[in-house]
Formats: sequence, C-alpha cells, structure tokens
Amino acid sequence: MHRYRSHNCGELRATDVDTDVRLSGWLHNRRDLGGILFIDLRDHYGLVQLVARPGTPANEALGSLTKETVVRIDGKVSARGADNVNPDLPTGEIEIEVSEVEVLGAADQIPFTINADDGVNEEKRLEYRFLDLRRERMHRNIMLRTAVISAIRHKMVALGFNEMATPILSATSPEGARDFLVPSRLHAGKFYALPQAPQQFKQLLMIAGFDRYFQIAPCFRDEDARADRSPGEFYQLDVEMSFVEQEDVFQPVEKLMTELFTEFGNGRTVTSPFPRIPFREAMLKYGSDKPDLRAELELVDVSDVFAGSGFKAFADKHVRALAVPDTADQPRKFFDQLGDFAVQQGAKGLAWVRVGEDNALTGPIAKFLTEDDIKSLVVALDLKPGHAVFFGAGEFDEVSKIMGAVRVEVAKRAGHFVEDEFRFCWIVDFPMFEKDEDTGKIEFSHNPFSMPQGGLEALETKDPLDILAWQYDIVCNGTELSSGAIRNHEPEVMYKAFAIAGYDKDTVEAEFGGMLRAFKFGAPPHGGIAPGVDRIVMLLADEPNIRETIAFPLNGNAQDLLMGAPSEVEEARLKELHLSLRKPQAK
Amino acid sequence: MHRYRSHNCGELRATDVDTDVRLSGWLHNRRDLGGILFIDLRDHYGLVQLVARPGTPANEALGSLTKETVVRIDGKVSARGADNVNPDLPTGEIEIEVSEVEVLGAADQIPFTINADDGVNEEKRLEYRFLDLRRERMHRNIMLRTAVISAIRHKMVALGFNEMATPILSATSPEGARDFLVPSRLHAGKFYALPQAPQQFKQLLMIAGFDRYFQIAPCFRDEDARADRSPGEFYQLDVEMSFVEQEDVFQPVEKLMTELFTEFGNGRTVTSPFPRIPFREAMLKYGSDKPDLRAELELVDVSDVFAGSGFKAFADKHVRALAVPDTADQPRKFFDQLGDFAVQQGAKGLAWVRVGEDNALTGPIAKFLTEDDIKSLVVALDLKPGHAVFFGAGEFDEVSKIMGAVRVEVAKRAGHFVEDEFRFCWIVDFPMFEKDEDTGKIEFSHNPFSMPQGGLEALETKDPLDILAWQYDIVCNGTELSSGAIRNHEPEVMYKAFAIAGYDKDTVEAEFGGMLRAFKFGAPPHGGIAPGVDRIVMLLADEPNIRETIAFPLNGNAQDLLMGAPSEVEEARLKELHLSLRKPQAK
Repeated sequence: MHRYRSHNCGELRATDVDTDVRLSGWLHNRRDLGGILFIDLRDHYGLVQLVARPGTPANEALGSLTKETVVRIDGKVSARGADNVNPDLPTGEIEIEVSEVEVLGAADQIPFTINADDGVNEEKRLEYRFLDLRRERMHRNIMLRTAVISAIRHKMVALGFNEMATPILSATSPEGARDFLVPSRLHAGKFYALPQAPQQFKQLLMIAGFDRYFQIAPCFRDEDARADRSPGEFYQLDVEMSFVEQEDVFQPVEKLMTELFTEFGNGRTVTSPFPRIPFREAMLKYGSDKPDLRAELELVDVSDVFAGSGFKAFADKHVRALAVPDTADQPRKFFDQLGDFAVQQGAKGLAWVRVGEDNALTGPIAKFLTEDDIKSLVVALDLKPGHAVFFGAGEFDEVSKIMGAVRVEVAKRAGHFVEDEFRFCWIVDFPMFEKDEDTGKIEFSHNPFSMPQGGLEALETKDPLDILAWQYDIVCNGTELSSGAIRNHEPEVMYKAFAIAGYDKDTVEAEFGGMLRAFKFGAPPHGGIAPGVDRIVMLLADEPNIRETIAFPLNGNAQDLLMGAPSEVEEARLKELHLSLRKPQAK
Repeated sequence: MHRYRSHNCGELRATDVDTDVRLSGWLHNRRDLGGILFIDLRDHYGLVQLVARPGTPANEALGSLTKETVVRIDGKVSARGADNVNPDLPTGEIEIEVSEVEVLGAADQIPFTINADDGVNEEKRLEYRFLDLRRERMHRNIMLRTAVISAIRHKMVALGFNEMATPILSATSPEGARDFLVPSRLHAGKFYALPQAPQQFKQLLMIAGFDRYFQIAPCFRDEDARADRSPGEFYQLDVEMSFVEQEDVFQPVEKLMTELFTEFGNGRTVTSPFPRIPFREAMLKYGSDKPDLRAELELVDVSDVFAGSGFKAFADKHVRALAVPDTADQPRKFFDQLGDFAVQQGAKGLAWVRVGEDNALTGPIAKFLTEDDIKSLVVALDLKPGHAVFFGAGEFDEVSKIMGAVRVEVAKRAGHFVEDEFRFCWIVDFPMFEKDEDTGKIEFSHNPFSMPQGGLEALETKDPLDILAWQYDIVCNGTELSSGAIRNHEPEVMYKAFAIAGYDKDTVEAEFGGMLRAFKFGAPPHGGIAPGVDRIVMLLADEPNIRETIAFPLNGNAQDLLMGAPSEVEEARLKELHLSLRKPQAK
C-alpha cells in the first residue's frame, strides 16, 4: 500500500464498503458523540468522515490532536446508517472505521477558523494566507481561476493562436501608468522596467511574421490599488493577429468568451452574438461606454422636444429621458429614493412623471409640460399607460453619467434587470480625436496608435473630430474587460495623425522611434485586444474583491504580509546596484 | 472576399487549381526569368510562388518592390509544369498568376538577409530581432518552444496537476543567487525582489492544501550569462506534490518527459524507464552526477589492484579504468589525441594499454604492470583482446572529473556513442552532509531543506556523512534538467539537521522563520522538481545557445538591444523611489 494514501478524501462511495483504505489529510472537524469520535478528514479532493470507537488506540490518538493536524489513517470503509447519510457530501454514504493513526504534520492552535467564516479581518488572512487558502471559498476560487486560465489556453490554441512569452525585464514604455523599475548591477545608473503590458512586443511579433499570438501575460503597474486591480501585478489575455480587420478580432474573442462564460458561469447564460454598439450610441442610450445590458431600459435624447420650451429646467439643454414600463403605480417613496440616488451621482434632483390612462401625465414636473410636449414625448418614448418617465437635463457628459447610473438603478428596482446572464457587447467607432474644452486644442481621444478609419485619406480630408478609430472595447455586465484596436502600422499615417494632434515628426521619432523603425521594414496590418484575466475570474466567481481570486495577492497597500515584502536590503546590495537611499533608513 | 486573404501562403495545393485567391505576405525572394517574375510570398504558414507575366500591371508593381515588403495579391491558382514542381515545398505543385497587387507595408533596405544565413553577427540580429525572427530557423525554434510549452501544460493537466501563478513582485529569498530588486514607491527604502524560483510559494501551496501544482514559472537571477542560461529571466516547469515519496514524483515527470521528447524529438528516441543511479555510483561509473548515457562505456574503480603496488603513479591512489572494446587497433595518434584531451581537462597525462591476443598488454604503462596486476585487471574490467584501457589516478574528485570527460570523448571517437537518442536518468541518494576539507566542519551537501532519509531517527543515530537525502536530479544526455527533493516539512527534523551543520535554533528561526511558521500549522509531506524549460527546448531544438530559442532574449551582457534596456531614468522617478545614484550619471 502507498506510504500515504490508497484513495483521496473525496472519492470513496457506497460501492467501496468493506475496502481497507489509507487516507491522508487535515483534521477539519471533530465531534464527540458519547465517546465515539466523528472526524471530517479533508484534502484537496474532498471531505470524508472518520469514526473512532471508544477504547481504541485510534480514539485516543485522534481525541488529542488539534484541528488542522495532518494525519495518515488506515481503516475500513463502512456504510453509514440511513439516518446518517449526508446527501450534500459526495462521500456522504460512507464513513471510515479507523484502525491506525499517524501524525504527518502537527498543528499549533490555528489563528482563525478554517471550517467556517469567522469574520477574521483581511490583514490576518493575508498574513496567514497558507491557512486562509484552506477555506472552502478560497480553495474554490483559486481552483476556478486555475480552470479558467487553463481553458483559455486550450481554447486559444484550438483557435489557432500560439502562446509566446515576452520579456519581463524590459524597457520603460509609453503606456501612461507608472513603471516598476529594476536597477541594473552591470550597467551603473541604468534600469530595466517591468512591462505595463507586452504591447510593443506583441506588435513586434506580428512584424516578425507570427500570425496569431496570445499570452496569459503578467503586467505590472505601480498604481494605487482598486477593487478590480491589484497593486503591482495583474494578468491579461494578451492577443494580437495579423492581416485582420476589426471583425476578425471579434470573432475568436467572442467565441472564446461565449464558451468560457457558459462553461464556468455556474448556470448563468451568455447572449451571443454580442451587439456592436457605436460609442456615441452607447453614450446616448446607456449614458456610458460600459453599459450593463442586463438593465433592459434605454435612455432617449428628447432635447428637441424642449428646444425653445418655456420649461426653463429643460429648455435648450441636453435632455435625456428614461421610460420605464409597469412602474407608474410605484409609491412616492420609490421615486424619492431614486431622486436621492441621482443626487448621490451628482444630480441636483431627478425629474419624473407617471403615465396614466390616455397617457395623462402626473407627477412633479407634469404641470410644466405643454400638450405638445406630451404628444412629442409619447411618440419619442413610445409611452403607454403604466410607464414612469425619468428626466435628466444639462451638459451631455454630465447627463450621460447621471442618467446612465439611474438607468441601471431603476432597472434593478423596477424589475427590468436580468440576473443570471452575462451580457456582452462590443463598443466600436470611438472618435480618433477630441477637442480640449479649455485650450481648444485637438488631442487623441484614446489610443494614438490605433488606425484611423479611412486611413491617410481620412486624416487628410476630414474634420479631425469626425474621424473614427478602429478601436473597440469589450464589455460584460457593465465591466470593461478590455480595449483593443487595429493598430496604425503605417509610418506615414502615424506621422499625419500625430501632426493633427500637434506633434511634429521629430518628436514622434524621439518618443516612439523603436516601433516606427520596425514599421519601416515591412509591417503587416494587425490588431488585437487584451482582456483582463483577473476581471474575467472575478465575474465568474462573482467576487467583488480581486484579492479573493488570487492565491498570494499584495494587500491594498502593496505589501506582501506573508513573506514580508517589500523589505529593507543590505547596504552592500545597494552599493552593488550603484544606489543609495534618499531617506535615512529606519533601524 | 476577405480584405487581406482568402488563404494563407502554405495551404494551396494542386486541387486548388483555377481557384481565385487573395494572399498576403512578405516578398521573400524574386527571380526574373526573361521578364517573367517569379516571387516567393511568405507568411507564418509557408511559402507560395507568384508569377507575374511581362507587360502586366502586376509585373510592374512587383518588379520595383524591395524584399520584405508586405503585399496583398489577387490571382488565380495554376498548376506548375512538371519540370517546375518543387517537391520540397508543400505548395510546390502550384503557383499563382497575379492579377492585382497592393502594398500593405513598405520595406526599407533590410540590414541582413532573411532568406539565407549571411553570417551577420548576433548583436545586429538582436538589434533587429523582429527581422531575425522572420528567418526560417528562428521561426521554427520559436514555434517549437511554443508547441513544447503548450504540450507540457496539456500533459500536466492530464496528469492531474493544476497550474497556479505565484507572485513576481515578491520578497528576497535565501536561494543563493543574487536577486533582482524592485524599489518600492509607497514604502521608502524598501524593495521587492523578483523570485529566483517560486520555491517557497509552491511549498506554501502544498501547506494550503492544493495537491498537485505546476507552473511554467518565470524565474530571475542577477547572474552572469551562460550558454544554457540567459542573464535575467528564465523559465522552469515548477512542480510540487503532496503526500508523496520520491518515486511518486518520478512517475509523472518520467511520463511527461518520455512523451514530450518522443513527440518533439524529431525522430530521436527516448529510453524509458529512466535508470535510477545513486550519486556515488554515478561518480564512480561516469565520473559525474550528470552522466551522458549515450556514451556506452563505464569507468571501474581499480584502486584495489594497485594497493601497495610498485608502480608509483598508481600505488595507493584512487585509480579509475575505462575499458573500451574494439579499440586496440587504433593508431598511436588516436591515443595521443586522447592524452591531449585529458590534459585539457586538467590531467597530467593519460595512461593506457592495448589488450592483445591472450590478453597480453602493450602500450606505455604495460611494462609497469605485474602479472598479478594484469590478472586482476582482466577480471575487474572483463578484458578481451581488442580492448584498450585508459587509466586515471589521483584524488577521487579530480580523477572522476577527468575520467568522466575522457569516457564521453573516447566513446565518441571509438564508436561507442549513440546519437539520436535521449537517454535520461535519475541521480538519487545524494549525501545530506559533507565535510569541509579545510575546516573539518560538517556542512549541507546540497539543499538544507530536503528531508533526510530516515528522518529524525537517522539524524540522531547515524554518522552525518552516512546520511542520504531524499534529493534527486533528472539528467538527459549529460544535461541536468533539474534538481528536486522530498522537502523537510517537520520543524523538529529541520532544527536537528541545521544543528548538525552548526546552526542553532535561533539562527534557523531568524533565517527561515517564514517557512518554519507555516510548517507549524499542519504541513503535509511534499516534494517536487523544476525542470528548466529553456534547457528542454535547447535539447529538442538541438541548439547550443539558449538565445536561439527565445524570441526576445537579453544579450550576453544583459542588455535588450532592440528596446534599449536597461536605460537611464529621470531624476524625478528616482526621487519618487527614494533613491539616488551613487555614480554621477554619464551624459
């Protein structure tokens, strides 16, 4: 028999009764029922119940051990009595009569409870992460992460992509965020940078002739923590393809996401194909370029209705309306609470009306609406008796933000929000340029390295503010998983695009010379995307805190409380790295 | 039709004749035969021949383009004449009559040749790596690497292992080599370290209850470059298992390696099961703990034969002999060259004899051997007429080193070396302790964290120098792929082992407190291994330089010549990181 186990703790069944077995695992729980010890033994694979009868050496041995001790036991599988069968446990039909016990790993008193949530704070959990990870929820989350990433790899290979690792000790990059730096010992005064993303390397791989690249890529940004991003490192599914247009990128990503979220969604369904929503339409209908499409309501621009109106609050402003079916009979409190919500979002208040019989409007602002206004609204919003209508008025961006939030909140409260679905969409047709409101200067809206729609001709002939980019976002349930783009791979187009944004050729070459040089030796058209792996896992695990889905995360203050990082280093090391500390080091 | 291609450059066949196609790729080569242009168009998938007839717009367009220009062409597939079929090319039965050409990516004059090896130096290749990677050999190597790593992952998952990423921003570790450090912005004067290996994290995962872990793990050592290790970063297949003994680790790894090297060995065979060779036996028989078993000769300890001998060169020394069949008839030059080789290895010379009819010995040292010596040698070495015998004498370690090298060299020169096989072995039973020759002090031989064979009892009762460790190496064709061990997971055993090596409890706790603390809360027996991915790929690609198997390696001087790393950073960044440079920064 194997030194440690003939079976794992999750696999024994009623068909194994009378088998002599050897098991190893952790003492998860112990109950003493009239001297008979019932013990749950736990390993990676599951739980199994041990029984030690009074007066046996096994009873004596198991009675004195602390929880979480690691033991090896020998015993015989027996059937549980009908009353004692546990249908929630895969091994619930059997138990093990223990004949022999060996302690493999002793356990001191554990600083918090493993087999139940005792509300211990996160700092303590991270300090003892090796214990925290034994808890069922964390174990499940980490295994989900593992399975999801493994499935991504498998599916990407099946889709014809090749995984390639790009350097981690790399050069500083113009990604915008702060790099982590690594001082060089061999080259005094010089530093490597950890990659914020393998953006340049993946484009170089395309220029090098590899056709379809992916990588589960570690990325590093020296940023402050957010709920959905760890400080320090995070992972993205980095993807790049050659000889593609936008839709060629969408197809494999959409297939991947649909399969992945169906497979690991725990019963939640995926709606595909994913709608393609132009950026401007998204801002109008959803007040956001990250629309949560589970909210089945849409905003409507009714500014025209109030052009020249006598109702000053709306007159000649940007006015957005949200019509909500089956909501007119909600009590006043419902509307007041939504008003409070809108104020929290930065609104001065929330205008609303109820639609009654014959489309008669009642509510705070009804008296300000003319009959013409009402007729126009009925048409624009397709109003029916029972609708409630909410309004926001002001500047486009501000109204979008507030009414976008109101849209989702109303949908949730009024029963127009679909739970248990993953609703993806592509946001497309982002503007290439925008005007700085203060300076009047033309600037890049998002990514200067995206290909403008229409290429060089568009840059030379169109109003810059009318030029769209081949740039896109993928959004799921209101979470942006990634931006992506068809890249600008033509030096002439790049010089022209930067010229429009006020950069001369010399500046472009000084800043981005490396990539420009590569583009000059035969670059294929290419594009890609980089969905956040952590965000995918968070959505699937339904965990709002990213640290619940990572085995060994830094805490919110960028510290590893388990291993004690960052930490001070010896003077000799600093010297070797040609560095000295600016502040006197605390003793 | 798709904007860029209806087919790739590697897939068209005789069955596609008369099909209208669109292809995109790089202009690999161009020949002008009486005005007809024949062009090889290349993409990731292969090569295809284009034909542009004189007087056509296609001829004009293609005639003026530089090599490596990226084009999109439209055309019709036609059969090549029987004389022009190229059986070496998958598309060799067809060619494309080009009707239309579009330049997608212009190319300046390329600094070296892509379609042939022009002997350009490595620095230039690395500076233009995106071009170098277009060359067939590099493209093949990188795709091999990709396929090998993907297969490793697939096979490891099939073997029940779960891939988990461990932190890259981590704490300094006691691995022995130099860490790369990352200064913290948030914590003045403190540093993260990049992991030399995820050793502690993988052990913590076992303590956390995950049963079978693996990771294609990036590792970082601030070491000088070697042929088989990049400066900076490298990858290992990091593996750890709980509730295992040594053989439990060997089984999946052996299965993995056998499958991997069979699948990707390009016809080379794998001999399995892998022999388990105790360390001392390996040193005796092969003079090395990294034996190349393709050399089918073994050394024999013949010290006893010469104990008290009158032949001073051998008397009372450690004497190792190598008997080589079918070699006595080699000319004197053969033996002299091997003597030169031995001198290069550090020997003073190489003693040898030929075995003739009736086992009569001739050669330089024959006259010093008595009849008894010869009789003993015939028995010890199983000598037969036609053998040649080589001898080394001196200290055990020195003789091992020299005769180990001679063994392989003789095998190659005398036809006892098997090419085209991967011969793996496990080296086992490494000693736990050794005596420092100068100080007489007992020290750890290799890894202080391995479990001693016999556990606490052995430590308490045996001569330390007789204690073996549950530690092992996996070796292939003379290359060590990895060390591994069953870990010491019991604090009491660890304190005792360190006490033998002269460290008191306080020192152990100060140095290794983090892991010790974890071991005190219920640690399972566990062990693992971490074969070098780069070395595996080098063996499979048959490349002696690791940089030929990595897409974007640092050069031997730890520089990225393509992206310009390491580089200087702005004073403001240093200030933010609480650092100043010790040396004035060069302008």
